[in-house]
Amino acid sequence: MKNEGSEKALQQVQDKAKLVRKWCLVSTTAANSGHATSCLSAADIATVLFDTYFSYDIKNPRNITNDRFVLSKGHASPLFYTLFAMAGGLPMEELKTLRKFGSNLQGHPMPDFKFTDVATGSLGQGLSAGAGFALLAKKENLAFKTFVLMGDSEMAEGSVWEAANFASYYKLNNLIAIVDVNRLGQSQETMYGHHLDEYVRRLSSCDFEVLAIDGHNYEEIDKALSLAVNNKSDRPFAIVAQTFKGRGVSFLENKDNWHGKPLSKDDLQKALKELGEVDDELRFELRSPRSAVAHPSTIESDARRSSVARGPVSSFPPASAPSKYSVRAVGSPSSAATPHYKIGDEVATRQVYGEVLAELGNSNPDVYALDAEVKNSTFSELFQKAHPQRFVECFIAEQNMVGVALGLSKLGKKPFASSFACFLTRAFDQIRMSVLSGGNIAFCGSHAGVSIGEDGPSQMGLEDIAMFGALPGTIIMQPADAVTTAKVLPLLADYNGISYLRTLRPKTKVIYNSSEKFTIGGSKILKQSKNDILTISATGITVFEALKAYEELKKESIFVRVVDCYSVKPVDEETLKKCLSETKKNTIITVEDHFAHGGLGDFVLSAVSQTGAKVEKMAVEQIMRSGTGDELLDAAGISSRNIIAKVKSLLK
Amino acid sequence: MKNEGSEKALQQVQDKAKLVRKWCLVSTTAANSGHATSCLSAADIATVLFDTYFSYDIKNPRNITNDRFVLSKGHASPLFYTLFAMAGGLPMEELKTLRKFGSNLQGHPMPDFKFTDVATGSLGQGLSAGAGFALLAKKENLAFKTFVLMGDSEMAEGSVWEAANFASYYKLNNLIAIVDVNRLGQSQETMYGHHLDEYVRRLSSCDFEVLAIDGHNYEEIDKALSLAVNNKSDRPFAIVAQTFKGRGVSFLENKDNWHGKPLSKDDLQKALKELGEVDDELRFELRSPRSAVAHPSTIESDARRSSVARGPVSSFPPASAPSKYSVRAVGSPSSAATPHYKIGDEVATRQVYGEVLAELGNSNPDVYALDAEVKNSTFSELFQKAHPQRFVECFIAEQNMVGVALGLSKLGKKPFASSFACFLTRAFDQIRMSVLSGGNIAFCGSHAGVSIGEDGPSQMGLEDIAMFGALPGTIIMQPADAVTTAKVLPLLADYNGISYLRTLRPKTKVIYNSSEKFTIGGSKILKQSKNDILTISATGITVFEALKAYEELKKESIFVRVVDCYSVKPVDEETLKKCLSETKKNTIITVEDHFAHGGLGDFVLSAVSQTGAKVEKMAVEQIMRSGTGDELLDAAGISSRNIIAKVKSLLK
Repeated sequence: MKNEGSEKALQQVQDKAKLVRKWCLVSTTAANSGHATSCLSAADIATVLFDTYFSYDIKNPRNITNDRFVLSKGHASPLFYTLFAMAGGLPMEELKTLRKFGSNLQGHPMPDFKFTDVATGSLGQGLSAGAGFALLAKKENLAFKTFVLMGDSEMAEGSVWEAANFASYYKLNNLIAIVDVNRLGQSQETMYGHHLDEYVRRLSSCDFEVLAIDGHNYEEIDKALSLAVNNKSDRPFAIVAQTFKGRGVSFLENKDNWHGKPLSKDDLQKALKELGEVDDELRFELRSPRSAVAHPSTIESDARRSSVARGPVSSFPPASAPSKYSVRAVGSPSSAATPHYKIGDEVATRQVYGEVLAELGNSNPDVYALDAEVKNSTFSELFQKAHPQRFVECFIAEQNMVGVALGLSKLGKKPFASSFACFLTRAFDQIRMSVLSGGNIAFCGSHAGVSIGEDGPSQMGLEDIAMFGALPGTIIMQPADAVTTAKVLPLLADYNGISYLRTLRPKTKVIYNSSEKFTIGGSKILKQSKNDILTISATGITVFEALKAYEELKKESIFVRVVDCYSVKPVDEETLKKCLSETKKNTIITVEDHFAHGGLGDFVLSAVSQTGAKVEKMAVEQIMRSGTGDELLDAAGISSRNIIAKVKSLLK
Repeated sequence: MKNEGSEKALQQVQDKAKLVRKWCLVSTTAANSGHATSCLSAADIATVLFDTYFSYDIKNPRNITNDRFVLSKGHASPLFYTLFAMAGGLPMEELKTLRKFGSNLQGHPMPDFKFTDVATGSLGQGLSAGAGFALLAKKENLAFKTFVLMGDSEMAEGSVWEAANFASYYKLNNLIAIVDVNRLGQSQETMYGHHLDEYVRRLSSCDFEVLAIDGHNYEEIDKALSLAVNNKSDRPFAIVAQTFKGRGVSFLENKDNWHGKPLSKDDLQKALKELGEVDDELRFELRSPRSAVAHPSTIESDARRSSVARGPVSSFPPASAPSKYSVRAVGSPSSAATPHYKIGDEVATRQVYGEVLAELGNSNPDVYALDAEVKNSTFSELFQKAHPQRFVECFIAEQNMVGVALGLSKLGKKPFASSFACFLTRAFDQIRMSVLSGGNIAFCGSHAGVSIGEDGPSQMGLEDIAMFGALPGTIIMQPADAVTTAKVLPLLADYNGISYLRTLRPKTKVIYNSSEKFTIGGSKILKQSKNDILTISATGITVFEALKAYEELKKESIFVRVVDCYSVKPVDEETLKKCLSETKKNTIITVEDHFAHGGLGDFVLSAVSQTGAKVEKMAVEQIMRSGTGDELLDAAGISSRNIIAKVKSLLK
C-alpha cells in the first residue's frame, strides 16, 4: 500500500476491516454470547493478513502448500469464521449460526469447521502447533508460512515460551507470531498492559526477530507482515501489536468488563451506526499458495498485493511433497514388525519400542519420532539413529512436544511422542486438545509404575492410564513382553487418533511366540483349566506376578485363570465375560501397577458391570517410595504374594 | 573470603566441597544407582551456600524464619542429603542408605526427609514453589531467603518461565535462582550448552538481576551469593553458573553418558584417590535464621562468614509470624459457613464458592486464594475484594499457580486455587507433585461439564474427576446447589491434603435446607420409597436431571431412588450398598457430566464391585460441541429424557 501511495487501496482495506468488525458483532449478538471485543482488537491485522499476505487455496484447505493460520486466541473465533467467510469459504449468512447447536461455527474453533487446523480455546497452545507446521515445511522444503495469532494474556503460559525457544532453536524463520496486545485480560489488565517492550524484550531474548507496531495502523501492519513474510534471517518472526480491545466502537474500546460479552440488539445497532456505511459485498481474494506463485512477476501484476518488495519464493526449493495430504498415512502393520525375540529372552519393552519404531520408520516415510530429552531411556534414540531427519528432539518441554506432534499430525504425518509416563502428565491439557483437534499421535510413556524401583515416586507413572483413558476415542496398550510390544506398535501406527503405549523400565521375559496375533481390544488367556475358580486380569509387569501366583496356587491345587490385558482400552470385554462364565466364583481380580482409580480395574469393572460379576481391584493405593522393583511391587500390594493372599481370602 | 585474603578459609571451603563430593560418590555407589555427576557440578556452589549464606535452624526445619533451599534439580538428591548431613541434620553414615527401601533418602527428595520442603524430581517446578515461599515472606515480613538450585536442562520447561515472570511481577527480590549450567542433559547437550548468555538474556528479559559466574570458582560464587543475599533491587536474583558435570573426577568431568549412573566400586576408589585426602570431620555450621541475627556485629564476629558487606537484616521488619508453623491451620467449619440460601433460589455453585471463601477468609487468616485470571468466572474475585492481601493473581499460568500454592501450603497456609476445571489439566504434573509433597491445597474447578453450553468443548472440564481421582489421598466434592457448596467448602478447608471442588457455570435451584449436614464421604438420598426398583446416583448438574426423571417416572408409577453423591471421592459406599439392598433390581444407574472413564461411575463401581450389584454408567462418551446446556446434556446422553429411557430399558 505504502509505495503505491494509493489512498483507494487503503480505503478498501479499511472498508474490509469494517465489514469484518460488523460480522464479529452481528454473529456474537445473534449467538447472544461470544468474545466480540477480542475480535475487534485483532480485526485490522487479520484483515491486512487476509487481504494481502495469506496464501491459501480456499477450495482446498488440505492443500499442503497452503499457508497456515492458527488462531491461538481461540475465543476470537467469530473473527476466524468471518475471515474465511469473506475469503469465500462459507456463506456470510452462516456466520449467524455461531455457537448454535449443530453449527460448525462453535464457540472456539473445532475441526468440524474445515479451515481449522487445530482446535484452540485453551490458551498458549497455538505457537507449538504452528511450530510443528513450520518444522514440517522446513523438513519437506515447503514454501508455506505459518501465522499464529496470539493474545497478550496467553503470553503468561509457559508453553508459549517452550514453543518460542523450540522455534528459534530449530531456526523456524517461516513461523510468524502475531501478538495482539490489547491490554485487557478476562478480569483485569494483563501482566504488562500496553508495555510492548516487555513482550519485545522476552521474544528477542528467545532469538525472535521482533517488531513492535501499532496494530490499528494499516501501514505499520502491512510493513510488518511484509518483513515477516520476507524474513531473511534464520530466526522466527514476531509482530507485537499494540491494539485496543473493542476497537472501532466507542463504548467498547479499551473498556473493562466487556470480555466475552456480546452486544445487546440495541447496542449492536448503535455500534453498527458508529462503524458507518459498509459495502457488504467486499470479499478477500486470497493469494494463491506459495508453491504455485513462484514467479515474482505474477505478484507484481496483481493489484491486490502490496508493492513492498517480496523476496522470490525460489529461496525455498520447490515443494517435493504431494499437494494434498491424507491424514492417515502409515503403512500396513505387516510390513513393520517381524519380532525376532524368543520365548525366555529378557528384553525391556521400552527397548523394543525403539527397535520397532525404527523399523516402522523404514517402511513408512511419514513416521516421525519426538522425545523430551529422555531418548536413551525411552529408546526413541534408536529411531533417531535410523532416521535422524525425522527425529525431533524437544528437550524437557513436554507441552510443546505434544503441540509440535499435533502440528505434524495435522499435515499428514504420524508422530510418536515419548517421555517417561509420569512426565506426560505435564501435557495433559495439550493431549486433551489433541483429541479435540482430531490429532493422530501415538504416545509412549516409559518407566510406568512402581517397578522402576530406586528413582522413587516422582518418576513413577501411576496415573497415566487414568489420564489417557478419560479422553474419548483413545487407545491404551500395555505390553508385558517384547513380542507384544513389537506386534501392537504397528497397530498404534495405523490407528488414526490418539493412542498410548505404556512401556516398562525392567527387562521382562518373552512369553509369546512371534507368530501370536494381537489386536486393539484383544487379550491373551495365558493359563486356564476346567477347574478355574476365578480369573486374574493383569497387564504389563503384573502379568508376571499373576503367572507366579498361578504356579504357587497350582501346587496347592488351586486353579486360576490368567488373562493378559495388553489392550487396556478398549479392554477385551468378550473374553472377560467368557472367563466369568467359565470360572466358579463369577469373580475377576484385576492387578495393575497403576493407582487404583482410573486404571485397568475400572475398565474391567465397566466392561462387566452389567453382569453382576464381582471384581476385586488390586492396584497401588498410596504414594510409594524408593526400593527395588520387587520390594515395591510387594509393598504396593500387587506382587504374586499379594495375589495369592487375595485369592485365598476369596476362597474362605 | 576475598577480603579476608585468607587462603586458609578458601582451603577449608575447598576441603568441605571435597567431602561433599566424596559422599555424593560414596552414597550413589552404595545405592548402585543415582545421579552422581549431576551432584558434582553443583557441589562447589552448594558448599559455599551452606558454608556461608544458608541461614537455618537445623534442629527445627519448620522454623518459619529458616531460609529455604529448594532442590529443583531433584535428581541431585545425594548432594541435598549430604549438605544437610554435614550441617548436622542426620548422621553421615545414613547417607549410605540412599535409595534403599525404607530409607528416607529416596531417589529424589520426598517429605519424609525432614529437610525437604517440596518433593522434586519432575523438573522445572522448584522455582514456582520457591516463588510461593518468597511471596509469603513478603506478605508476612519474614526475612528469610529462598534459594532454588536448578539444572540447565529444566530451563526448557515453560513452568520455569511462568515462575520467572511471576517472581518479577511480584518483585520477589528475596528469591535467588541458581542455575547449574553443566551443559549436559540426560541424553545430549542442552539447548544452549555452555552459552551462559542465552540464560542471562532470557532471565534478564524477565526482569531478574542476573550474574553469570564460573560455578567452580569460590571467589565468584561467594561474591555472587553475597550480592544475591544483599539484593537491594526490587527484582529477583539469578546466578547463572558455568559448571562441569562430574567436576572433580577426571574420567567423569564433562563426559557424555554418565547421566544417572553411579560409579562401580573400583571406579569409586579411583575417584576418591583423585579427590585426595579429605578431612572426614569437616561440617557446616549453619548461620542462624535471619530474624535471629538481625545485628550486623554478630555477623562480623563470626569467622565462618564472608566479610563481603552484608546489608543489615533490619531492612526487613522483624518477623510477625510465629516462629513455628503448623501445617494444618484452618479454623473449624462451623465458624465459616452460615448459608442464607433458600430452597428454590437459583444460585450458581461457582458464585457460592466465592462468597463462602470470602467468609472463610474472615474467620481464618491463613486462608489464601489464587486464581489464573478467571476470577470473575470462578468468583474468587469475591475473596479478593474481601482480602486483597491474601489473594494472589497468577495470570494465565496454571502450572506456576499450583507451585506457588504448594509453597504457601508448606509454610502453613491454606491456599484455594481456582480456574476453569478444564484448565487445571494444564497443571496435572504440578498437582501430582503437590500430592507427593504432602501439600495442603484446595482446588476449585469451575465450568465443569457440557452444561457450560455455547463456549464449546475446549472449555468443558470433563476429565477433571479422573485426574484428581487417580491421585491417592485426594478428596473430590461436587455440590449440586448453593447450600451444599457452602457446607462442604469448610470441610475442604479443614482437610489437610489435596482436595477438589467442582463447580458449575449455570445457576441451579437450592434443594437443601441450610440446616442439612454434609460430610466428606457423605451423600443425600433425595427420593425414596418402599417400591423403588433401582437407584440413580447423580452428582452436580445431573442431580436435577435425575430429579426430573423421578417426577416423570412417578407419573407412570415407576419408583426410583435418587441419591446426590456430592462427595465423589470418597463416595458414600455405605449408603449405596444400603440402597442396593432396599431396591428391587440390585442396580445403580450413575449419571454424571464427565467423561465415562474415571468419573463418579467408576467410584460407585469400585465401591459396590464386590457385591455382585449391577451398575449402569451414564456419562459423556464423545467430544461435545457448542449449544445450550440443555441441548448438550441431552445430546451427551445424560438428560432426564436419557435417564428415563435407561430406566425403562432396564425394566424390560
